[in-house]
Amino acid sequence: MLIGGNLRDDVILDREHVGGRISLADRYRTVRARSEAIAAPLSPEDQQLQSMPDASPTKWHLAHVSWFFETFLLARDPAYRPFDPAYKFLFNSYYDAIGARHPRPQRGLLSRPTVAEIMAYRAHVDRAMLARIDGLPADLIELGLNHEEQHQELILMDIKHAFSMNAIAPAYAPPAEASAVGGEGGWTRFDGGLIEIGHDGAGFAFDNEGPRHRQWIEPFRLADRLVTNGEWDAFIEDGGYSTPTLWLSDGWATVGAEGWRSPLYWRDERRIFTLHGEQPIDPAAPVSHISFYEADAFARWAGKRLPTEAEWEVAARSVAPEPTGASIDPRPATGTGLRQMAGALWQWTASAYAPYPGFRPADDATGEYNGKFMSGQMVLRGGACITPPGHARSTYRNFFPPAARWAFAGVRLADEA
Amino acid sequence: MLIGGNLRDDVILDREHVGGRISLADRYRTVRARSEAIAAPLSPEDQQLQSMPDASPTKWHLAHVSWFFETFLLARDPAYRPFDPAYKFLFNSYYDAIGARHPRPQRGLLSRPTVAEIMAYRAHVDRAMLARIDGLPADLIELGLNHEEQHQELILMDIKHAFSMNAIAPAYAPPAEASAVGGEGGWTRFDGGLIEIGHDGAGFAFDNEGPRHRQWIEPFRLADRLVTNGEWDAFIEDGGYSTPTLWLSDGWATVGAEGWRSPLYWRDERRIFTLHGEQPIDPAAPVSHISFYEADAFARWAGKRLPTEAEWEVAARSVAPEPTGASIDPRPATGTGLRQMAGALWQWTASAYAPYPGFRPADDATGEYNGKFMSGQMVLRGGACITPPGHARSTYRNFFPPAARWAFAGVRLADEA
Amino acid sequence: MLIGGNLRDDVILDREHVGGRISLADRYRTVRARSEAIAAPLSPEDQQLQSMPDASPTKWHLAHVSWFFETFLLARDPAYRPFDPAYKFLFNSYYDAIGARHPRPQRGLLSRPTVAEIMAYRAHVDRAMLARIDGLPADLIELGLNHEEQHQELILMDIKHAFSMNAIAPAYAPPAEASAVGGEGGWTRFDGGLIEIGHDGAGFAFDNEGPRHRQWIEPFRLADRLVTNGEWDAFIEDGGYSTPTLWLSDGWATVGAEGWRSPLYWRDERRIFTLHGEQPIDPAAPVSHISFYEADAFARWAGKRLPTEAEWEVAARSVAPEPTGASIDPRPATGTGLRQMAGALWQWTASAYAPYPGFRPADDATGEYNGKFMSGQMVLRGGACITPPGHARSTYRNFFPPAARWAFAGVRLADEA
Amino acid sequence: MLIGGNLRDDVILDREHVGGRISLADRYRTVRARSEAIAAPLSPEDQQLQSMPDASPTKWHLAHVSWFFETFLLARDPAYRPFDPAYKFLFNSYYDAIGARHPRPQRGLLSRPTVAEIMAYRAHVDRAMLARIDGLPADLIELGLNHEEQHQELILMDIKHAFSMNAIAPAYAPPAEASAVGGEGGWTRFDGGLIEIGHDGAGFAFDNEGPRHRQWIEPFRLADRLVTNGEWDAFIEDGGYSTPTLWLSDGWATVGAEGWRSPLYWRDERRIFTLHGEQPIDPAAPVSHISFYEADAFARWAGKRLPTEAEWEVAARSVAPEPTGASIDPRPATGTGLRQMAGALWQWTASAYAPYPGFRPADDATGEYNGKFMSGQMVLRGGACITPPGHARSTYRNFFPPAARWAFAGVRLADEA
Repeated sequence: MLIGGNLRDDVILDREHVGGRISLADRYRTVRARSEAIAAPLSPEDQQLQSMPDASPTKWHLAHVSWFFETFLLARDPAYRPFDPAYKFLFNSYYDAIGARHPRPQRGLLSRPTVAEIMAYRAHVDRAMLARIDGLPADLIELGLNHEEQHQELILMDIKHAFSMNAIAPAYAPPAEASAVGGEGGWTRFDGGLIEIGHDGAGFAFDNEGPRHRQWIEPFRLADRLVTNGEWDAFIEDGGYSTPTLWLSDGWATVGAEGWRSPLYWRDERRIFTLHGEQPIDPAAPVSHISFYEADAFARWAGKRLPTEAEWEVAARSVAPEPTGASIDPRPATGTGLRQMAGALWQWTASAYAPYPGFRPADDATGEYNGKFMSGQMVLRGGACITPPGHARSTYRNFFPPAARWAFAGVRLADEA
Repeated sequence: MLIGGNLRDDVILDREHVGGRISLADRYRTVRARSEAIAAPLSPEDQQLQSMPDASPTKWHLAHVSWFFETFLLARDPAYRPFDPAYKFLFNSYYDAIGARHPRPQRGLLSRPTVAEIMAYRAHVDRAMLARIDGLPADLIELGLNHEEQHQELILMDIKHAFSMNAIAPAYAPPAEASAVGGEGGWTRFDGGLIEIGHDGAGFAFDNEGPRHRQWIEPFRLADRLVTNGEWDAFIEDGGYSTPTLWLSDGWATVGAEGWRSPLYWRDERRIFTLHGEQPIDPAAPVSHISFYEADAFARWAGKRLPTEAEWEVAARSVAPEPTGASIDPRPATGTGLRQMAGALWQWTASAYAPYPGFRPADDATGEYNGKFMSGQMVLRGGACITPPGHARSTYRNFFPPAARWAFAGVRLADEA
Repeated sequence: MLIGGNLRDDVILDREHVGGRISLADRYRTVRARSEAIAAPLSPEDQQLQSMPDASPTKWHLAHVSWFFETFLLARDPAYRPFDPAYKFLFNSYYDAIGARHPRPQRGLLSRPTVAEIMAYRAHVDRAMLARIDGLPADLIELGLNHEEQHQELILMDIKHAFSMNAIAPAYAPPAEASAVGGEGGWTRFDGGLIEIGHDGAGFAFDNEGPRHRQWIEPFRLADRLVTNGEWDAFIEDGGYSTPTLWLSDGWATVGAEGWRSPLYWRDERRIFTLHGEQPIDPAAPVSHISFYEADAFARWAGKRLPTEAEWEVAARSVAPEPTGASIDPRPATGTGLRQMAGALWQWTASAYAPYPGFRPADDATGEYNGKFMSGQMVLRGGACITPPGHARSTYRNFFPPAARWAFAGVRLADEA
Repeated sequence: MLIGGNLRDDVILDREHVGGRISLADRYRTVRARSEAIAAPLSPEDQQLQSMPDASPTKWHLAHVSWFFETFLLARDPAYRPFDPAYKFLFNSYYDAIGARHPRPQRGLLSRPTVAEIMAYRAHVDRAMLARIDGLPADLIELGLNHEEQHQELILMDIKHAFSMNAIAPAYAPPAEASAVGGEGGWTRFDGGLIEIGHDGAGFAFDNEGPRHRQWIEPFRLADRLVTNGEWDAFIEDGGYSTPTLWLSDGWATVGAEGWRSPLYWRDERRIFTLHGEQPIDPAAPVSHISFYEADAFARWAGKRLPTEAEWEVAARSVAPEPTGASIDPRPATGTGLRQMAGALWQWTASAYAPYPGFRPADDATGEYNGKFMSGQMVLRGGACITPPGHARSTYRNFFPPAARWAFAGVRLADEA
């Protein structure tokens, strides 16, 4: 299944390469419509769910991304009339410079506004945006659209987590066709040296992807594909979750406190919870919904290590990007050579999320977008099956706390050359 | 406003007195319909809310009361086909003898079954019950109906709490007409002596109301009406919430930990959150949504005490019962003499909730209904404005933990004679 | 072993009966010396331990009981010079009327004052008290002495708990001689009726023991002796700790949260931790260190119930009191008839701790002594092996929260007549 | 004051440079004696204190460092008789490969063994070590001695924290003489380029300091001295602790949760708690006992940033090392030029604690020494006034979680060149 499949066309896929061919208004309409297509299979009750403080209700995501356009763009026009003054408070996520906000862990308690009211809010914002689109700063609009794309992925992550709490295992979508069988994995060698990483400023990128800067790396090797469920099973069978010396100290403490014995959505009898409902585990598919701690322990067990984000970025630009957004469950690797750099899962790196040398957040409130989260998190690279088409880049820096498991995240191994 | 007002008629009000006049099938239909009338103003999103572990979503209440009939009555018939086998797990509240169940704090995460599916479940159970009603034990049916009436009150308590967490203060119902002004309160004296309390077995009662038994009480006086918001305001103004010597030790610790400075739903600028939305505080209305700790501290501040449940019961049977279920916000006392014994608010007593001498719970799973909660809670007597018509009795023993504030509970003072 | 054994003599044992024979000064000296004798086997390191917020370091107890005399008696004399002004803050336990105080859970962090300094403080207070003893109110002095006796018991409870946290199982005292074998238990019947309970004001009693008042009780039977370890073992073997229907709801939740599988100090291989170190479990000795929840579940399993405090008191005054303070571990019952009403263990009752009718705490700060704890706790009656000689009475109301297990508490069963 | 001052002599100070001049036995004796000198001013009660899970009692430190020699060295000799077999369990810190251990947060509950017994344990280990010193691996002995030096610093950190919880503010040592006035701070520029960092293997280093490896750094500037209390005061006055946009998101959450308004030991009326007791704040002294979050917020407020550990190391090797271990409270900077690189405080860097490229922990149990802590922590560089003489190095990598404040840690600013 393709999320919002009826919306995807060449225009979207070509965005990065021939972005100039579509108007900003068309792109705005396309992104906004895709969010609604993603929410379409969900009932009002589904859209109300918040299964943990880190997650948000679908309808809250739908409102918040509109709040972003209203706050950072429409509010520049004194003639703009907000849809509802209370929304400034209700749908602010974490922007301290904007003001007070509804407590994050209680987003699931906002039954009002209803889904219908939030859809009306979206329509109101869309009319106002499209009426002014030529007079507003294009870079901020593009930020708002990329922001909405990030929330499209979050909607799917969050509803998967929420549905997983229900004993009747609701399916977001009907079961998918059987996967192709994946091939064996090899290794690809890279020379290292004084390289450059980071975004060079051509086309859209988030602020945390720059500045581009020099870095020295030694020669290294990268696994051609992601670690599979079958390989993870061998780790479990070998006592991976009960051998403290394989784990970072914080990781081992988390294993004990949370009772981890397998990846997040694995269930008894070799079954796994997915957005297609409960399914048999496919041993050839990449292992998903693991934490950094588990990725790191697996690498140690395998006698390997995780790549740094610089190594990953150097490798990624050596191959043509694979598309994201093509399914809601990661598929086995096919073919040979370095692959699955995007399109299956985000990939934990060994790099703590920190500012690049010379990084300065924007002076206005959008400066809170990324910079203030630069502690206590690890960088993931790549792009998942649920990442919107055209949203990922080789310089893209995703990040989550080391114990987080609800992201579509997997493992690629690295080693010395 | 009268909840489910169109359903209430003489038949209901007369239930206790001339119960024989209506058939059990009619009574079943009436109670079941009233639950749905209470839920009618609530959207699917509203019905999904669970604002704290002690509360449940509206739709969960609607399903659980049906589960009760299915589990304790319909399951006796081998020919009965359950609506959905998973519901046995999802909608069991706390009956260990029945089996495992969905975790209570996560009831709000069950977006499926939807409200529509739960309404279909109710219809299925209703058809099955009405088809078998003459062959099933009438006392168990009556227990199920009284159980459902208790949940009708819980639905209103819980949605009030949930709505109160929303900054836009949703209203369950439009504002009510202005209240009448309440009169001054006096005291009524009772002689005490060797009295009997507890239910005598004629007509329906919960098991915890019996056995009827002898008890010695000394002469005492009871306040004619409940403590008002205006009187509570004087307590606040006098430093009631900042004077530790007025409080029980556990109460004072709770004041500090929770930051209590007023009753639960009081807000700035002398406003109060109600099921009618935010309103001005009516100084003549009885103070509501206070904990036992606050009731006890107020009584100490006033130089009085709370009544025991035996004192309360002796007094209550000396006056004609006032009707419950007539509004969704407690109204000021009118008239003179001992009043508001029911119909406005439940009333905290000085009695810890404990079994009466000789109490034995039922041998089957319904034995878990009341008995296992007989520790750590205080008895409330009376009946609130939101209590279903005809549901309360002078022997009725309601109970909540001493820190609970979301019940429709107030204070009546007592003193030595 | 007898605690403070060298201090015990006929004078102490006879206190209640012929109290007039010893002077108040002698009694003061005797009680104060006994506290120090109890602490004598403990090193400065031992005396520093606080193993949970409910417990206190030995040296803190030694200082606090002196603070009591200083605050409520010596401070009445303007000429009295406090030993150290900081102690007013450090050693106030819970008297809000006296002022701010050191946080209870951090008493174990007060390495200064040292044990030696606290002993000097005690000597300072003793000199001042004895110099003024004829001019100070005798009832308050007696309250201070009974207060100190309560802390003598707490010192032993608390050090037992603290030592139990140490894998090397330190012994407070060398092993005791083997116990006598206990006999079978029968039942004693009581008639009930309109009885009086509570202290009548002759001789010392705590305020919570009065006023004496009338109460109606039905005929009942009381077990002749306490439940034994052997009987408790049968409860365990029968799945007592894994059968939810035997438990109060709060009790069952505590079993799960705390992982209870046996009484507090039971260990593997039928061994038990005592103040004599680790020992084999004596099946004839009374089961000890159980919570109210466990006592209640055991009674339900046995088809019996716990006595009310009124039933217990009526029964207790029908037999001659057994002495307390004769050992540091409870011994098996010997002989026949109603016994172990004191001297072995405190006994959980079915009564929640509440004020007696007409109870009024003292107007001064000593009014905080008992009254403010009258919620959330259960009454225990009797007196333990570690209770100071002469300290218990048939009207004595001890109290602990229903989950507390570190008191020397056991079970006596009751039943209808 | 100089800690263990009577033990310090030229031999110690010269260790790094002419290490060959003293025998390993002499060095063993010197380090071991210094630990005992540090503990000497502390009473048995003081040595029992554990004020938070991260801290340990003094006597536990004294035993654990002996356990290290016993476990990793003496146990190699089958003829060695352990002092007490239980100590293997009691004094293991975190070595999973060695076996089970006493829970870390409960170290303060081990009143036994007493201080005297632990001193006897030390003597036993010393005799056994000195008898075998020529036959045991010198590198492991050196690791054990450096390990003990780390605990010498921890003893002082931990007792400072414990004493700070006591309202009477105990002093570890008498007040020190008044400090010299510090001079203004300038900036020193460094060229960057392809540099090498990490230990080269000549002389002792911890495993986490290597392997030495190449890294590219851009030109940068480093502040000549540490940020002072006076400068921190300006940050506070400017609303530093109440301006969310200055903080990392996790930092701001911590400010709120912990109520931070100033560095850890600052008190009202411009006073500060130190190991000399409470003192006036010296505005010229470097600010100490701040978290990484605070250091980072201060740097943002100042328009600067924290140095990376590579920048810091390059700068440090450009100047002669200043001695550590010369006082128990950090002193103002004197003189001019780059200074206070060691001897005053550890200095937070912008670098998350991660393995150097090619890092592999040892194969035996000592491999747990550092590697497993390489997540969730930030690197500090330098060396504090309380760091043992000769213990620090320019390659030394200290590390603490970003919210930790009880280390002797301060801030040095960095900037682009």
